[in-house]
Formats: sequence, structure tokens, C-alpha cells
Amino acid sequence: MAEIETLVTEIARKAREASRKLTSLSTEVKNRVLLETARRLREEKAFLQAENEKDLAYAREKGLSAALIDRLTLSDKVIEGMARGLEEVAALPDPVGEVVKMWRRPNGLWVGRMRIPLGVIAMIYESRPNVTIDAAGLCFKSGNAVILRGGSEAINSNLALARIFQEALRSSGAPEEAVQVIPTTDRAAVNVLLTLDEYIDLIIPRGGEGLIRFVTENSRIPVLKHFKGVCHVYVDKFADLEMARRIAVNAKVQRPGVCNAMETLLVHREVAEKFLPVVAEDFKAHGVELRGCPETRKLVSWAKEATEEDWDAEYLDLILAVRVVPSMDEALDHIARYGSNHTETIVTEDYHRAMRFLKEVDASVVMVNASTRFNDGGELGLGAEIGISTTKLHAYGPMALEELTAMKFIVFGEGQIRE
Amino acid sequence: MAEIETLVTEIARKAREASRKLTSLSTEVKNRVLLETARRLREEKAFLQAENEKDLAYAREKGLSAALIDRLTLSDKVIEGMARGLEEVAALPDPVGEVVKMWRRPNGLWVGRMRIPLGVIAMIYESRPNVTIDAAGLCFKSGNAVILRGGSEAINSNLALARIFQEALRSSGAPEEAVQVIPTTDRAAVNVLLTLDEYIDLIIPRGGEGLIRFVTENSRIPVLKHFKGVCHVYVDKFADLEMARRIAVNAKVQRPGVCNAMETLLVHREVAEKFLPVVAEDFKAHGVELRGCPETRKLVSWAKEATEEDWDAEYLDLILAVRVVPSMDEALDHIARYGSNHTETIVTEDYHRAMRFLKEVDASVVMVNASTRFNDGGELGLGAEIGISTTKLHAYGPMALEELTAMKFIVFGEGQIRE
Repeated sequence: MAEIETLVTEIARKAREASRKLTSLSTEVKNRVLLETARRLREEKAFLQAENEKDLAYAREKGLSAALIDRLTLSDKVIEGMARGLEEVAALPDPVGEVVKMWRRPNGLWVGRMRIPLGVIAMIYESRPNVTIDAAGLCFKSGNAVILRGGSEAINSNLALARIFQEALRSSGAPEEAVQVIPTTDRAAVNVLLTLDEYIDLIIPRGGEGLIRFVTENSRIPVLKHFKGVCHVYVDKFADLEMARRIAVNAKVQRPGVCNAMETLLVHREVAEKFLPVVAEDFKAHGVELRGCPETRKLVSWAKEATEEDWDAEYLDLILAVRVVPSMDEALDHIARYGSNHTETIVTEDYHRAMRFLKEVDASVVMVNASTRFNDGGELGLGAEIGISTTKLHAYGPMALEELTAMKFIVFGEGQIRE
Repeated sequence: MAEIETLVTEIARKAREASRKLTSLSTEVKNRVLLETARRLREEKAFLQAENEKDLAYAREKGLSAALIDRLTLSDKVIEGMARGLEEVAALPDPVGEVVKMWRRPNGLWVGRMRIPLGVIAMIYESRPNVTIDAAGLCFKSGNAVILRGGSEAINSNLALARIFQEALRSSGAPEEAVQVIPTTDRAAVNVLLTLDEYIDLIIPRGGEGLIRFVTENSRIPVLKHFKGVCHVYVDKFADLEMARRIAVNAKVQRPGVCNAMETLLVHREVAEKFLPVVAEDFKAHGVELRGCPETRKLVSWAKEATEEDWDAEYLDLILAVRVVPSMDEALDHIARYGSNHTETIVTEDYHRAMRFLKEVDASVVMVNASTRFNDGGELGLGAEIGISTTKLHAYGPMALEELTAMKFIVFGEGQIRE
């Protein structure tokens, strides 16, 4: 334990040192590093895949599931995806140094707010090794040093990826310690990380609810967290039912295993009879299991019975809870009670109801007449994302480059003093 | 303990309920409540002062210092100050509902970012009872419910102030539980508050470093913290020395007991001989004790010797540490090492040095040619402040109405689905 503590503390201390240098790195140098890393990822594919093979061999030996092994694999496609991702981040505007606004005070002081890096960010994540490069790219572009702690099953892959990033840093004269992977799979390393508030400014956990709760409860450092996505589509009595059908199906089946997929469908009683039997056929065709309230089951005989747990469930699967509500108020109450502040959609043609939904629903992304699947940094136009925050401090919703910065005040004076 | 837990949890639960109603309260109603509270504070002065007298009697009995008793007193002037403060907050723009920006995606989606309240804020503070009204006013205007936990020596005053605010809430049809004071002085109440992350979104501690550390280390809820203000004025070799003198004196003596007062003066070696003996006379005239580095003491014979602790010290008193630095780099290193990320000023006539200081110094407010005393919400034009954050997550620097909000994404669609 003492050894791990020394190791991790030393990494964090170096990250802090590097972060001070990053503050004044030009956009040009940062972009050069990102493009150079992309180039080297492609060039050193053989090396990466050989290191990855060590992790895969161990995973197979341990009998990990095919799905997990798939996520762990650095295929040609995954490597190309990481390289392209870095090129896209290089093309995004640099948030650092942006003066968001500036105003003049009666005494002549000019006051502005300037974006600056947060400092040192620690990412704690699970299996996919591509997160190593995606997170490092975003943190670096926004001027932050990053400490990466991936899943133990990907340790060789992660170290190899970081090495490539560090070579690009070195060759551009940027501090190598801007990107570091914790070189041990010992779990104690996470506990140490969470106490180093002297060196680390932010922790971003990415993974299952268990990981996120553990980090939140044990961290002394602020945590940006994404709990779960229990997303609703509410089909209002004034909905265009054809549109509602398209949106509901897309929200559920286009990619059911992700956090912005719909988990519960709410249908206004006045349109339930017309809407539910039809959309149920769509769901059946896509192999979706329905779990309905009593009214739903009257209209869709094959739906299973929903229990209280179903309203809370994040299935991440081809399962959908369905509830008929007597009024929009009840839809709003249901969402306030069971929603996870992630993504909520109303389908309606009524202006006032659309506006009310937008204003009153408390979720990181609130939509009218669009699929919940659009809650994504890329889809919303932020360029890339490092996660989705479902709590309101610092960031709410998809977090991209801007969310990895803070704003300091700058003041231009001419000798003003306070009377 | 179980009783306290039930009491505090119930308060927090009610605050959460109230916060949902506050989201859709119109600006008009909010301002009416603020103005009505101001009116009642003036009208019920006798009641307030009678309740305050209970606290004062107890304080005298316990032998509290005159300074503490002064801070505890609800004088006519303090009451008028609270009432005016509320009127000023009523006059500020309502941040809630502001759509900060909006853009259109290639698929026609309109995406915007809208300010919303954070939810429930708990303030934990020490003696001054006027914080009760100041904090309640800002939280309420920004649509947040607030739970107030003041010093035990002010309990009767705080309860009386909250009662007046609640009467104004009730008479305007707003939820009374928007403003609640914890009605016990039991210390266990704070420990309970810090665990209620289900109901409370943000903790703001205001007080000594001990209180803030305790809250930070024990809270499961995000904390906006203001540690200490070790603020520097760096007098560059290209400074206008007359201006430097004015700024240095103002920064130290205009109000030495506050966090944005200067604690250490850094002087470039090339101007030390000309500047220090002169400014030292100013400080002497104001009764300031100087603690200098060896070079300073060669120039100012009566300065005491500074030790390592002096560079870290937040004196909050008529004491000043003084150091001669051989270069701007060393001034920057000194600030990076000993500064508290609060307020830093350079005095210089050199354009490049001014810009470098603004860019490189990591502090919530970085200034050129102005007194550190301007780090204040009112002085910087934010209208009012609830504290000054010296950490970068969520807010950095003075926190006013905007900092008490989050931004959600709103999306206007026309049936878009994700391909």
C-alpha cells in the first residue's frame, strides 16, 4: 500500500507540474501533438495490436465473455477510429484563452471572463481501451493534464496507447506527463487517487453505477458523474402519432445498450387506444419485450405486467416499460419521480405543451419532437464528448471541451483603487 | 441523533419539494417576495431586535468578545442594509430561463442552453445573521430553495429573519419551504446535512478555514469553497511607482480584515531601492507591520524578519510580508507556490508583461494595475455575491446569481430520429 501510494502520488505531482506548462502551450503545438499521435497510432498498429494481444490472451484464459473481449480488442477499425477522433479534436476550436465576455465598470475597469484549463483530471474507466486516447485528446486540447486509470484487463493496451501519445508530446516539446496511465492494476491505486486533492482538480468516472457510486462516496475531489439514463418519451394527446411512432421506435431500438435509449414510454390516455396497438407491432417486429401498466395490457395483450421496479429500470436492452397517463401533469410527475435527469422527450403538436415541457422538466437534455438518442456531444454539435453529466454542478449534459475548462476573471485597470 | 436526523431530513425533503415549484415561478412573483420581505424587515424591526436581544444576552453572559457581539447585532443600520440588499437583488435580471446560446444542426434540430436553478442549496455559516437574508435573497431569485445553518450564537435572530421571509413567501403564494433555517444548534445537524445528497444539490460553507475543511472532507454533496485569500501585488520593474504605491496601500489598508486584502508585496529588484523605502513610510503611517526578506530589511531597517510561514500567511490584519524578487519569473513562481488562487495583481507599464501575467497566473481574479480589493461581486459588476470560489469546478471567483444556476440543453425538433 505504501508503495502504491508513493507511485500514484508521484504521478499526480508530475501531472500538476505538467499542467502548469500546458496553460501556456499554443493551440498550434497542441494540434501538432494530436495529429502526430494520430499518425503514430496508424504507423505503430503492429506494436499496439501485439500489446493488445497480451490483454486478449489473458482475457481468454480467464474466460471473459465474447462481448467483453470484443470491447477489449484494438481492431484496425478501432485504431482508425481513435486516430480520426484525434484529428477531429485537433479541428475543434481551442477553448483556452477565449474571453467569453467583457464589460466596463463605471470606474473604468475592464472586466472579462477568460476560459482556462481546469488543471489535472483523473479518468477512471472500465474496459474499452479507446477511452484512453479519446479522453487524453480532449483533456490535452483543453490544456489539462490527465491521469488515466482504465480496467485492469486492458492494462497493456492502455500503457501502449499512452506511450504513443507521450512520444508525440516529446517530439513536439510538450511535457510528457500531460498524459499518464497508472501502471498498476492494484485497486488501491484508485483509493489513493481519490484523496489527492492537492494535485487533482476533477475526477471523471465512466462505467457502471457501482464504480460511480464508489468514486462519489470516497472522493475528496469533485466528481463529474453520470449515473444512469432512465429516459422517457411522452406521447401527448396532441401528438402527431406517425411521428411519435418513429421517435419511440428509434429511441428504443436504434441502439438499446446506451444511456440515451428510451426506457419508459408514457402515452396520454386520449391517444392510447389509437397509438399503443400500432407501436406495439413495431416493437414486436424489433423483438422488444413490453412491460405495461394495466391500461397498456388491455390494449396490448402480449405485454407483460410492469412492477414498481420497471419504472426505475435502466434496461439497456430490448425491454420497454409502458404506461398510460391520464394527463400531462401525470406524465410530468412520473418523470420527476422516476427520471434520472438524463434525456426526456415530448411528442406534441401543441405549442403551449411543448414550451411547458421544455421549461418544467429537469433533465440534462429536454427535447420536443426528437429522439432521445440525440443526447450526445457529437449529435448536439459540441464536436466530441468525454461523458454526460446528470448532476448540475459545473456541467449538465454532454461534456465537451468547454466543460473541461473554468473561467477566471481578468481585470484591466489604470491604477484604480477602492474608495 | 436519530431525532436530529429526522428533523434535518424532513427539512431537506421539503426544500426539494419547494424547489420543484420554484422552477416555474415567474420573475414578477419572485421580485414581489423580495420587496415584500424588505418591507417587512423594516416594519418588524422591533420584533427582530427583541429576538436578536436574546442572542446578545446569551453572548454577553458567555463573555463573547466585543467584536463578535458587534457582528451579531441587528442594529438599525444592519436591518436597513439587509432590506436594501433585497431591493438590489430584485432589481437584478432573473438568470432563470435565459437561453445563453442557440444553434441549428445540419438535420434541422435547434439546440440551446437554458439556465435553470441548481435546486436545493445549503448554506453553512458563522456569526453574522445578515447572511441569512443575503443568502436567502440570492438563492430565491435564482430559483433555488435554501437551507440555512448559521452560528449557534445567532439562532434566535436567524429564525426570526427566516420567519419574515416565509411570511412574504406565503403572502405571495410562493412555497414557504423555499427558505428554511435549521431550528436547532445541535452540531449533529451539520453532519446529517452533508449526507443528504438525495435532496441537496450544493453546500456553500462560509467562515473560517476549519469549517470549510470540515465540510469539504465530510460532504457527499458538491461544495463550493473559498479557502483563504493570500493575495499578492507584484510591483514590476516597469511599474509606475506612484501608481504602485497607491495600489499597494489601498490593497493592504483599505479594509485589512477581508479576503481580498493584500498579504504579500512582491517587488522587482530593479525598483526595490526606489520603491520600498517610500511605500514603507506609507505603511508606517497606517500602522502596518512589515515582515521582509533580507533584501527588504536592508532597505527598510524597521521591517521584521519574514519566515517561511509569512509567505503562506493570511494575516487579515495590519501586517504585510514583503519580498524582493530578481525577476518576473520569480514573482510568478512565488505566486504559484504560495498564492491561494484568490486575487493577484501586477503593476506594470509594460504591455507584454501585463498580458503574460493575465494569462499565466492561476487565480480567480487576475488584475493589471488595480487594487486586489476589487475582487468582489458588486465591484466587478455582478450585482451581489454569495461568496468567492477559489476552486475551479462550477465557479471560480465571486459567485452571484448566474453561479447559482446550471444550464440544461433544450432541443426543438420536427420529428428527427437518429440514423
